[in-house]
Amino acid sequence: MPVVIVEMWAGRTEEQKAAIIRGITRAFEEIGIRPEHVQVILHEIPKNNWGIGGEQASKMFP
Amino acid sequence: MPVVIVEMWAGRTEEQKAAIIRGITRAFEEIGIRPEHVQVILHEIPKNNWGIGGEQASKMFP
Amino acid sequence: MPVVIVEMWAGRTEEQKAAIIRGITRAFEEIGIRPEHVQVILHEIPKNNWGIGGEQASKMFP
Amino acid sequence: MPVVIVEMWAGRTEEQKAAIIRGITRAFEEIGIRPEHVQVILHEIPKNNWGIGGEQASKMFP
Amino acid sequence: MPVVIVEMWAGRTEEQKAAIIRGITRAFEEIGIRPEHVQVILHEIPKNNWGIGGEQASKMFP
Amino acid sequence: MPVVIVEMWAGRTEEQKAAIIRGITRAFEEIGIRPEHVQVILHEIPKNNWGIGGEQASKMFP
Repeated sequence: MPVVIVEMWAGRTEEQKAAIIRGITRAFEEIGIRPEHVQVILHEIPKNNWGIGGEQASKMFP
Repeated sequence: MPVVIVEMWAGRTEEQKAAIIRGITRAFEEIGIRPEHVQVILHEIPKNNWGIGGEQASKMFP
Repeated sequence: MPVVIVEMWAGRTEEQKAAIIRGITRAFEEIGIRPEHVQVILHEIPKNNWGIGGEQASKMFP
Repeated sequence: MPVVIVEMWAGRTEEQKAAIIRGITRAFEEIGIRPEHVQVILHEIPKNNWGIGGEQASKMFP
Repeated sequence: MPVVIVEMWAGRTEEQKAAIIRGITRAFEEIGIRPEHVQVILHEIPKNNWGIGGEQASKMFP
Repeated sequence: MPVVIVEMWAGRTEEQKAAIIRGITRAFEEIGIRPEHVQVILHEIPKNNWGIGGEQASKMFP
């Protein structure tokens, strides 16, 4: 019963988010897990709450 | 000092969220952990950010 | 379909872990969620991997 | 720079774990994210630390 | 390539959040990890979604 | 009451882990949070459970 938590920047379209969910679920199907047993949870994080190299991503990738 | 993170759909009432916090904390009290040492963190996830069976829950449970 | 992740010190008995799972699940039942929709995941953390007040818990609570 | 955390039962083979990592990464590539920006972290959880329906999975799926 | 997830109450200033990201990254630099390999993700949690001692923090620390 | 979860490769020394805990806690002290309110939890992940660029890190950094 895998549970997948995705930490990602906010701002993707609904189509992109649907594709991520579909693609991740398919990755588990390919090893024989039934898709209805896979849950995918997207955490959309604003760039000012995401640090890389010690800096807020909002400053580096505005 | 348990820390409990709950991933759940957004949309519960304040009373329901208070009940979840109370109930989870009680589960630890019952094995002898002091309630003030238990932290419960609720992540409320919109249904379009939650996938089941490869689909956004917002499409299956609108 | 709540997913509950518990960060806790390693070292509880099987009975205590079963009680935590049962108690947390009951907390969701009490607000009308069916128990088979609740998943509880226990992360057992050795005390040297848990810091409080800037110190490893293994040094404070050996 | 997505970070993907997978909570799953312990016991998959190296080939299956490699396939999960590859498949999840591909899901992000398909929406235009470079694979080297995707990190996938597998948390392998023993079944006695995973509850479904209020019971340890080790008792239901021995 | 450490990934650090911070669960914290919402309401800090941008300066404080930048300082947290900087300070956490520095902690890894001090043991020889390059800062560009450190990602820090802040989850800002409203106090009514945070329980301590079985109570919503919003009631205890309004 | 911040809770900090660190996903990192297994294999650091006790001294390095103690330094990470100390350094992260200090980052919160610097914005006025009392150290005894900061918990840091280290998840040590074997490299074969960590994917970068679609590959297990154990294959890239043996």
